[in-house]
This record gives sequence, C-alpha cells and structure tokens, in this order.
Amino acid sequence: MSESTIGSTPLLIVLSGPSGVGKDAILTSLRDRLSNCHFTVTVTTRPRRPKEQDGVDYFFISPERFRDMIARGELLEYAQVYGNWYGVPKEQVRQALSKGMDVMIKADVQGAATLKKSVPQAVFIFLAPASLRELESRLRDRQTESQEALAHRLAVATEEMKQLDKFDYMVVNADGQMERAIDQIEAIVTAEKCRVQPKASKSTCNLVT
Amino acid sequence: MSESTIGSTPLLIVLSGPSGVGKDAILTSLRDRLSNCHFTVTVTTRPRRPKEQDGVDYFFISPERFRDMIARGELLEYAQVYGNWYGVPKEQVRQALSKGMDVMIKADVQGAATLKKSVPQAVFIFLAPASLRELESRLRDRQTESQEALAHRLAVATEEMKQLDKFDYMVVNADGQMERAIDQIEAIVTAEKCRVQPKASKSTCNLVT
Repeated sequence: MSESTIGSTPLLIVLSGPSGVGKDAILTSLRDRLSNCHFTVTVTTRPRRPKEQDGVDYFFISPERFRDMIARGELLEYAQVYGNWYGVPKEQVRQALSKGMDVMIKADVQGAATLKKSVPQAVFIFLAPASLRELESRLRDRQTESQEALAHRLAVATEEMKQLDKFDYMVVNADGQMERAIDQIEAIVTAEKCRVQPKASKSTCNLVT
Repeated sequence: MSESTIGSTPLLIVLSGPSGVGKDAILTSLRDRLSNCHFTVTVTTRPRRPKEQDGVDYFFISPERFRDMIARGELLEYAQVYGNWYGVPKEQVRQALSKGMDVMIKADVQGAATLKKSVPQAVFIFLAPASLRELESRLRDRQTESQEALAHRLAVATEEMKQLDKFDYMVVNADGQMERAIDQIEAIVTAEKCRVQPKASKSTCNLVT
C-alpha cells in the first residue's frame, strides 16, 4: 500500500519520431521538468552541427571508435541513418537505472524498433508532427541539407508514420504548441509511475547488460 | 497522424478505493480541472448527510425506486454497501459518451469489480490511503458512525487493498497532499488520451446499453 513499493521502479522511456519533428527541443525543456531522469547522450559518427556541444548533444566519435563499441557490445542499440551511425551506450543506461533514476532515450524510429525488441518494458512515445506539411517546413528552416536530402527525409517520415502502432503513446508536436507536447510527455511519465503493474521493472536493470 | 483520430475517443474512468479515502473531495477538485468530463451522479437509498445535495452528491431515492431501476436494467452497476444500495445510471454514462465527453464514475471497490466485467475498457484508478492509520483517523473525524461500524469499515478496507492488482493505476491520497493526488489523476487522464491503442473505444458507447 505504501507508495514506495510502486513509485520506486525506474522507468525507461524511449522518445522517437521522424527527423525534424522537434525531439531535441522538447528534450531540452524536459530536462528542467523531470528531475530524477537521466537523458542518454547518443554517440554518433556524424559531423557536429554549429550549435552542438560534444558530450551534451551527442558524443561525436570516429567510425573506428564506433566499430569498437559495437564489437565490445557496449551499445544498447545502434543504427545507420542517412549514412551516419548513432548508438546508445549501455553503460549510461545501466548506471542511471541502478541509481533508481528514470532514463530517457532519444531514438529515431528505426532505433526505437530495435529497442522494442531488446527492452520491451520501456515506454515508447512517438512524437508526431501535426502534418507532413509542417514537418517539411521545419526541415526547410533547418537549412542543413540539399533539396534531395530533404525529399528523402520526407519519404522516410511518411514510412515511419506507419510504425505508430508499435508505440504506447503518440504526442503531437504542432507548430506553436510545443508546451502542450511537453506537458503531455510529463503527464505520461507521471501516469506510468502510478501504474499498478509497470511496464518497466527492476529486471530492466538486468536486461541492460 | 492527425490528433483528432486519437484524442477524440472518450474515456470511461472508474475512481475507486476504500471508504474514507477521500474520493468525494478529490472529485470535487477534479470537476474544475477536467472540462470535458461528465461526473456520474450515483443513485442511492442511503439517507442524505447534512452537507449533501440531492442531484449533486447523489440522487437520493427510495428502495422501491431503486428496485425499479434494477428491474428495468437502468443501472450499469449496483451494490449493497453497509446496508444501503448504490447504483450508476446507464443513461447518464451513455449520453455523455455519445456527446464525446469523458465519463468519471465513482465506485466502491466492490462496484469497481462489477464494472471491470461490464466495461473492461474503462481506466481503473485505485485511490489508496498512505496507511491504514491515516484512513482510521479520517473515518473518526467524519464522526458519522459508531465504533463498531468504524471497525467494520477498517476490516473491509484491509480486504479491499488486496484488490489493487485488478486496477490499472494506484494514486495515494496522503494527508496534506491531496493536490498531488489530483495532479496524478489529471496526468493519468492526459496520458490515456495520448495512448495509441486506447483501452476505451467507440465501442464503449455500444456496451453501455
């Protein structure tokens, strides 16, 4: 009956969604709201963008180091996206969970599918744009890629939308309504902590080995 | 992908828990927070308490009228608790759901078990005291019953706690922390509305016939 028997189970949360939907901006805000949550920093071989910080936005590593991490089984999931490699270091997740902290993993849709197999107890949230038109407009504003790359991203996004039914929750990040999306994700975390039979469990710690 | 395809499914929520845990006080506050939600008014044969209003807190009806409603199949669930009858009128639930409104049903633990069978798509929330000692102290403060009746309620509450695993969520209503419990219930409603595959569905309307 005591809350501690239920509330103490750390959650593993996977936030996914198409490229350009706004995962990074939302995670930045969530960092201030979810105090007992570790936000995993992904390792990647892709070049750093102007405003990005190594160790904060990503760990930028060489393809050699990335191959090393795969060989040593140090990644919870990894995938090649648009020619670059991305991976989630197990050690970060394991350490945070063992301290009783929740863990938030950012993953592209392909990565989320892999995680669904390795850690099905995780809570899977799909961040969706209000429309493909909004997504296109955001990707254009980013101005980091060619017309061709953009068309490719949109085609991929259209395919990714079809994966929605593999997720537990969908949160729409509509233009100008990011606060609403953040509130909803926070509510999902609060609700999952009230679950009588949480998806995540102590065994999550053991699975991430 | 549009939010309307998911957010439009009305939720059927059952708030239950032992007698004296604070269901009524919490529902009063939730009324202001959940704008698109109908709070069912239970019919009962028990005598009205001094501060209670007919049609607001309960519909106070005669045992004859209650038997009539049972005979006509007008109650979604009904049960005898401490010698009095309580029931949830179907018509209220049906009408609200058909308007696209969420419906919140207050039910004792016995009633929730019945609802679990008739409307399994509902979201079941167990409101728990932080401890049996807190529950006892609240029941004493109420001063509406004898020492014997109080002892009986506590024995029943202890049994009811064992039903927890039949519920989806547990929210603890600790003394002095009611706001926290209300926030958690509101978060559960928000989260359930983001579910990709909601427990409740359009068919809920059909089930309540």
